[in-house]
Amino acid sequence: MLDVERLPNSTGMENALVKRPHIIIVGAGFGGLEAAKKLACEDVRLTVIDRTNYHLFQPLLYQVATAALSPADIAAPVRAVLSKCRNVEVILAEVESVDVEARKVRTTDMEIDYDYLILAIGARHSYFGHNEWEKLAPGLKSLEDAIELRRRILMAFEYAEKITDDAARRAAMNFVVIGGGPTGVEMAGAIAEISRYTLARDFRHIDPSQARVILIEGEPRLLAAYPPDLSESARKQLIDLGVEVRTSTRATNLTEAGVQIGDEFIPCRVKIWAAGNNASFVGKTLGAPVDRAGRVIVSNDLTIPAHPEIQVIGDLANFSHQTGAPLPGVSPVAMQQGRHAARNILRMIRGQTPKRFRYFDKGSMATIGRNKAVADLKFVHLSGLPAWLAWLFVHIIFLVGFRNRLLVLFQWAWAYLTFDKGARLITRNFQSEQRPPA
Amino acid sequence: MLDVERLPNSTGMENALVKRPHIIIVGAGFGGLEAAKKLACEDVRLTVIDRTNYHLFQPLLYQVATAALSPADIAAPVRAVLSKCRNVEVILAEVESVDVEARKVRTTDMEIDYDYLILAIGARHSYFGHNEWEKLAPGLKSLEDAIELRRRILMAFEYAEKITDDAARRAAMNFVVIGGGPTGVEMAGAIAEISRYTLARDFRHIDPSQARVILIEGEPRLLAAYPPDLSESARKQLIDLGVEVRTSTRATNLTEAGVQIGDEFIPCRVKIWAAGNNASFVGKTLGAPVDRAGRVIVSNDLTIPAHPEIQVIGDLANFSHQTGAPLPGVSPVAMQQGRHAARNILRMIRGQTPKRFRYFDKGSMATIGRNKAVADLKFVHLSGLPAWLAWLFVHIIFLVGFRNRLLVLFQWAWAYLTFDKGARLITRNFQSEQRPPA
Repeated sequence: MLDVERLPNSTGMENALVKRPHIIIVGAGFGGLEAAKKLACEDVRLTVIDRTNYHLFQPLLYQVATAALSPADIAAPVRAVLSKCRNVEVILAEVESVDVEARKVRTTDMEIDYDYLILAIGARHSYFGHNEWEKLAPGLKSLEDAIELRRRILMAFEYAEKITDDAARRAAMNFVVIGGGPTGVEMAGAIAEISRYTLARDFRHIDPSQARVILIEGEPRLLAAYPPDLSESARKQLIDLGVEVRTSTRATNLTEAGVQIGDEFIPCRVKIWAAGNNASFVGKTLGAPVDRAGRVIVSNDLTIPAHPEIQVIGDLANFSHQTGAPLPGVSPVAMQQGRHAARNILRMIRGQTPKRFRYFDKGSMATIGRNKAVADLKFVHLSGLPAWLAWLFVHIIFLVGFRNRLLVLFQWAWAYLTFDKGARLITRNFQSEQRPPA
Repeated sequence: MLDVERLPNSTGMENALVKRPHIIIVGAGFGGLEAAKKLACEDVRLTVIDRTNYHLFQPLLYQVATAALSPADIAAPVRAVLSKCRNVEVILAEVESVDVEARKVRTTDMEIDYDYLILAIGARHSYFGHNEWEKLAPGLKSLEDAIELRRRILMAFEYAEKITDDAARRAAMNFVVIGGGPTGVEMAGAIAEISRYTLARDFRHIDPSQARVILIEGEPRLLAAYPPDLSESARKQLIDLGVEVRTSTRATNLTEAGVQIGDEFIPCRVKIWAAGNNASFVGKTLGAPVDRAGRVIVSNDLTIPAHPEIQVIGDLANFSHQTGAPLPGVSPVAMQQGRHAARNILRMIRGQTPKRFRYFDKGSMATIGRNKAVADLKFVHLSGLPAWLAWLFVHIIFLVGFRNRLLVLFQWAWAYLTFDKGARLITRNFQSEQRPPA
């Protein structure tokens, strides 16, 4: 076991900080990173633990999966983001559990004491008990997911171009997206766009614009969290792009060969999962009550019962004190909670009482394609071009790091003008790359 | 087996082309792509076969491995590059052999007839009989190689930051590059630069600038193919950057723990192989004589004996008719040979005699770091800033695709001004990414 206080240090500065309260943030997503920025350079010792070395701008992950952006365009190294303040330490590690009584976070290779903890470790896909579907229909949470989906989508067209069997070719050109929330809507729209525009002239034996994109949603309408008029607008915009939208429809089985929906079997190579989330298992190790999705039920100040030193935020938290329903798993909630948790900890350190959290909802937006989007700005509902421009503006503004913002803007401008998507790479794993010896 | 003439076709245009001579190009590297560009839109039927869906700008691969560029910045989809001419077909497949008598190319899943063949399938690393070293010390030929090396280099610093054991920490911060040709020199320089500048402020328990970068070369000088004064200049520039250069030194053994060179054992986590190449095994299936590196010994018109319809070019060819020694495996040779092979095939189709190939050597250049490079322009030898500017200019000009050129230029400008490298991502394989179920 390794104790962080005993780690060698090259600067000698940490020793002076040992007496300061030690705050651990687990997870460098939207919530964790906002909290870290608030606490960096304060009179505390801060440790940020994440399983990857980058903060991921998840709302644009579907653009990596559909070859519009490169992984590095939507990811910023956590160390670099937080390098200015010497009181911040970043550890690349996978957290396995929290020992609430001993106030320790356990990773796969060490154990670290904390005075205050912000748990912002997020969620993964839920396959509703069918974990065997994960390999058949990857979701879209990590860069690895996105690169794998990109590979599968591009390979499907390559396969269709080569194969002579009609049924196999049609199956390769069917793309089924399961789940009609923002991710599902964005993926379906983007796949339709690359097949209709980007790839249109590239093949000789198939016509990529004949690809079928089928979006399945269990509820009666898409984007169930949006106002009904925007759901309807999203449906129309998707149909404009050639997407087949099937609401009130559930996938009952998935196989290599395709997707079963009730009596109908849709043969398809590529299946994409956008249907549900499960909070990280680490939440359960707190011993506090969790809901059915594994989210920790938090008090109105984001802490858990009897442990004011533990804040749970973002996709891992079930915060139901405002509207009765849990707040949605979106980045504005996580970011506001991250800042609030950080401020409450600073208040506690100063001997003040923590404040309750209130979410300020500025609205939400989902993009569908070029000039196609929906935006619920609360005071007004937008569709089509105005919504798309609003989406573009917000996403550019919020992209972490000045460099990424310019790069992404440039690539979007290019893609807009030419329909060309630059990141059309089919990459494989290093291990599977080896050739037979000469 | 699948015959390309029987493939379904969506346009009906191919039928009209069936009587035209069918040319197959195997490999879409520098040689193959140049040949394809020359033959596209000519009165022939052209099929380009490659195992990846992109043309790779290999001279910049080391910048992907050292986190300066994203994979998509140096790769252009082959289909998109060649999509304008309807007589070109692109097939994503791995070629296994050539049946010279039957005039067929065999891939893992089909067999295709040709009238003329351009074999430009390149080379992989040679581990001098020690194939078990490949996993210990990856080379740098493919995007997968580069992403894996990037992961290993960045992970070494992460590991060093976490570990308390002094010896293990030192080993993690030793980087051994085996082979002092252009790739080895570029890798050593780039690793030294990121440790001294890019990562300098990001860690708390280690000082990345203390990393040791050791470059091993068996010959008495680096860049053996360059004039001696430039070899010496490269050595000095590397030492300026803090690289330890060891010439006349050979790695006698590689293990997980480090590299043995004679009596000395250098403990190190990251080992990089830049020492030698072996031509693709496909060359041997031609039945023509090959040299010790597996290269096909070609006639002065790039064909093999008794088979004027087969041209062998690039890294796969041993062309010794000009200087007595084989031409080096660099992109200008491959590109000139690609154009020449294409022209000779067009001549033969017209009933003219093929011409002999002559390489026009415009010189060569290798970069070492910011403002550091060597350039042998034949009429003048450059070092330092002038060489670096020449290198920058040539590489920007030759980068395939207008978009990539701008993107790369932008990223270089950014990196130059800020020392920030944007692509510092540690990504894993999709399979190893799965978490334990909740």
